[in-house]
Amino acid sequence: MSPDQFPIPPQEGEQTTLPRFDEVAPVVKPVEEEDEEENFYGLSDETYSGIIAAVHTGDWLTVEQEVLDLEPSDIADLLEKSSRDDALEMVKHLHGILDSETYTYLGYDRLKKLFAVLSPREIASIIADLNTDDAISLLEDIDEEDRREILRHVNERSRALVEEGLTFPEDSAGRLMQRDVVAIPQFWTVGKALDYLQALGDELPEQLYDLFLVNPRHHVVGQVAIGQLLRAKRGAKISEIADEDPHTVPIDTDQEHVAALFKRSTVTSVPVIDDTERLIGVITVDDIVSVIDEEASEDILRLGGVENDDLAQPALATAWSRFRWLFVNLLTAMLASFVVGQFEAVLEKIVALAVLMPIVAGMGGNAGTQTLTVAVRALATKELSAANYWRVTLKETLVGVMNGSAFAIIMGVVTWLWFHDPRLGMVIGGAMVTNLFFAGLAGTLIPIGLYKMKADPAISAAVFLTTVTDVIGFSSFLGLATIFLVQK
Amino acid sequence: MSPDQFPIPPQEGEQTTLPRFDEVAPVVKPVEEEDEEENFYGLSDETYSGIIAAVHTGDWLTVEQEVLDLEPSDIADLLEKSSRDDALEMVKHLHGILDSETYTYLGYDRLKKLFAVLSPREIASIIADLNTDDAISLLEDIDEEDRREILRHVNERSRALVEEGLTFPEDSAGRLMQRDVVAIPQFWTVGKALDYLQALGDELPEQLYDLFLVNPRHHVVGQVAIGQLLRAKRGAKISEIADEDPHTVPIDTDQEHVAALFKRSTVTSVPVIDDTERLIGVITVDDIVSVIDEEASEDILRLGGVENDDLAQPALATAWSRFRWLFVNLLTAMLASFVVGQFEAVLEKIVALAVLMPIVAGMGGNAGTQTLTVAVRALATKELSAANYWRVTLKETLVGVMNGSAFAIIMGVVTWLWFHDPRLGMVIGGAMVTNLFFAGLAGTLIPIGLYKMKADPAISAAVFLTTVTDVIGFSSFLGLATIFLVQK
Repeated sequence: MSPDQFPIPPQEGEQTTLPRFDEVAPVVKPVEEEDEEENFYGLSDETYSGIIAAVHTGDWLTVEQEVLDLEPSDIADLLEKSSRDDALEMVKHLHGILDSETYTYLGYDRLKKLFAVLSPREIASIIADLNTDDAISLLEDIDEEDRREILRHVNERSRALVEEGLTFPEDSAGRLMQRDVVAIPQFWTVGKALDYLQALGDELPEQLYDLFLVNPRHHVVGQVAIGQLLRAKRGAKISEIADEDPHTVPIDTDQEHVAALFKRSTVTSVPVIDDTERLIGVITVDDIVSVIDEEASEDILRLGGVENDDLAQPALATAWSRFRWLFVNLLTAMLASFVVGQFEAVLEKIVALAVLMPIVAGMGGNAGTQTLTVAVRALATKELSAANYWRVTLKETLVGVMNGSAFAIIMGVVTWLWFHDPRLGMVIGGAMVTNLFFAGLAGTLIPIGLYKMKADPAISAAVFLTTVTDVIGFSSFLGLATIFLVQK
Repeated sequence: MSPDQFPIPPQEGEQTTLPRFDEVAPVVKPVEEEDEEENFYGLSDETYSGIIAAVHTGDWLTVEQEVLDLEPSDIADLLEKSSRDDALEMVKHLHGILDSETYTYLGYDRLKKLFAVLSPREIASIIADLNTDDAISLLEDIDEEDRREILRHVNERSRALVEEGLTFPEDSAGRLMQRDVVAIPQFWTVGKALDYLQALGDELPEQLYDLFLVNPRHHVVGQVAIGQLLRAKRGAKISEIADEDPHTVPIDTDQEHVAALFKRSTVTSVPVIDDTERLIGVITVDDIVSVIDEEASEDILRLGGVENDDLAQPALATAWSRFRWLFVNLLTAMLASFVVGQFEAVLEKIVALAVLMPIVAGMGGNAGTQTLTVAVRALATKELSAANYWRVTLKETLVGVMNGSAFAIIMGVVTWLWFHDPRLGMVIGGAMVTNLFFAGLAGTLIPIGLYKMKADPAISAAVFLTTVTDVIGFSSFLGLATIFLVQK
């Protein structure tokens, strides 16, 4: 379907001069990419510098004017990127004019700092402005005592909803859902449903995707997209145009599974049901955008050995959170080092081995990381599952042998030319094939194994992998050297 | 707002027995997590095995029945995970009953293989079934000649739209947009707009989020969410309830920027405009879900040294695509090895250095990777920009010194105890601080530098980083050893 299937119908007494699309020459020449394009949406660095300069000179009139022109997410960026003192000053001065939505875009660490300068009553007024799901996400990380103090200033019904929301597991459908869901009895007509929507007036959510049909027990028995409703005849039974077998999501479903549902189908909203299967909320596709982003960030950071990160966190907190992963790495590095120690005799005789050994271990680590990255991502997107474990593992091992052989030849020749010893070249070549073979094997089996044990492959697989590639890299290289290079 | 603000209004002559939400005891006890939960949505491994077994025995009746129960995305999974021969057999037999949407979920490699067994006419019938944006994404990777042959069997107007779509840059707004956008004159009333929607009937898109108000030159001058329209008075001017300054997206905007716009605001659809600012299409939030997922996958894979991956690709193609990155790594590993070679004299005297040196380089690599991962992700999400380059770099360097000092002490003591030489412990400690300091510095400056040079930091930063941490790790450790441990 295309726009020119919607010619604006000429109406009596009105002149519609809108040209139809197909009357327009389809000349679309690409606009030159501008340098400023990287700030296409969001806070430009010039605006940022201007505002910070005004903060420093205490010119709050200018700050206010500038900030009023920004989107809430841009203001959040401003508060996140500026120094802690500047951010606190800004919140103190601007609190009254900031859109409550601003706070929903802030990272946990900065948010906590900024809330510290606001009174419980002021925070409560922010909470009162927001949808239940946003209110809950602002409050979920706050100490219970402070939270209770804040909620004392919120009206009873919002408090009840927020408190109920907080009882649902973190990162579950219950935390994501909006409570403002439009449910109508299954036997209504289209006209009646439309009149009902009109009658709801201000209580109708602005962003409305679907209506849900419910039976007398409040179970979901149908789902109707707004577009379907609008184009149907007023007299038609609504159940006739409804999808009668809609997806439903139990309230404690992990948000990752909810995101998977949206990725794997064309639905724009799904009803959330409690354990008696009653409709209690709705999750819409725009709530899912941030979940998908969040889950991807988590995977990226975890693969890089970072548990969670916040640029606004103080250095000491960051150092400590990363220390643990580095410590585990140190233990595995010491294991590899211990393996090398077993070959002191041959290292003493042939110092070239010490020069070359990092290459074998490093190439194994890199090849293994490639495989690991693919496997972790494929497990996350469900492209890898029991159905193809075996085929993918076989393929990755084969890839390891192929590239292992290629680099064995390259490195064998280089070593021969460098150290004028063909036998040393053969030893490094043999070690290279061996290590890349095991890298491919471990790169798939480790994440699959962790996944089957219900551990997150992104977080721990890399340590195990480098342990394997270091130990096998060093021991195969130095072991082969001991066998073939040392004259008895 | 909450569901119990929508009590179903009792209507004359009808009995609504729907209980109100607040009459329901809010007992929501968490359901036990089941083992099957990992297949909550999607193709279960049992179903998969059952179908493949039926394929192998040629029991196509069973295959058909099973497949008809699956969602298009699940069938795509089935075709993706099965061996190539099984997939080809299935498409040959099932083509007639498969939903065209199925093909939109397939990876490029598998899709190409499967299209090879279908005639141009059969592919054309798939294309004709799809929205323009989906049709374009299926056709964009097909050879031009084959594509032309396929399009010969498509009706003229779809062909024109697809061909026009293909002229827009890949990964641009033009490829993402749907052409079925509902535009109405700015001076209409709410009632008139509603009647118009009703009159459009089947031509109205099912998934409708917003209407766009246009002026006589077809420029976008307002945006109205459907919910706003439905709840407004029929007599009201539509321009009164519209957002009068909506975001618009030029047609050649990169999809990453479009995704950023959706992430940074609460819009559910944005109008796409051509270079004369005329409205020509719309991008909706559900189109963006796959973009966000795609961009995140790309970043994850690139950080892991994988250009692009397809589990269904043959091993040789995968090996070759990864070879290039490994080759670059080999060159940098040889550089590090060359640095070690400069210290042959001290390595010959103290073999313990060869045993310990991988630890210093490895810890630097891991600490640098942590910093790098955070920086690359923050650059992608725009949390890191010129406004805070300096502060983040300083912080990361500080984190490096902190953890460097901690591990200097740990490794110094371990080395002292292991090799009974306090001076060797001091040397490894000094090298550790030095390397982790530079790891923090390089971990931020390298991705920032690449970003400023318009290169993708995800794809090349890791090579540069390990080069730095290897070279500095080996040379500081062996250099300090030469100075402090070798008696002249």
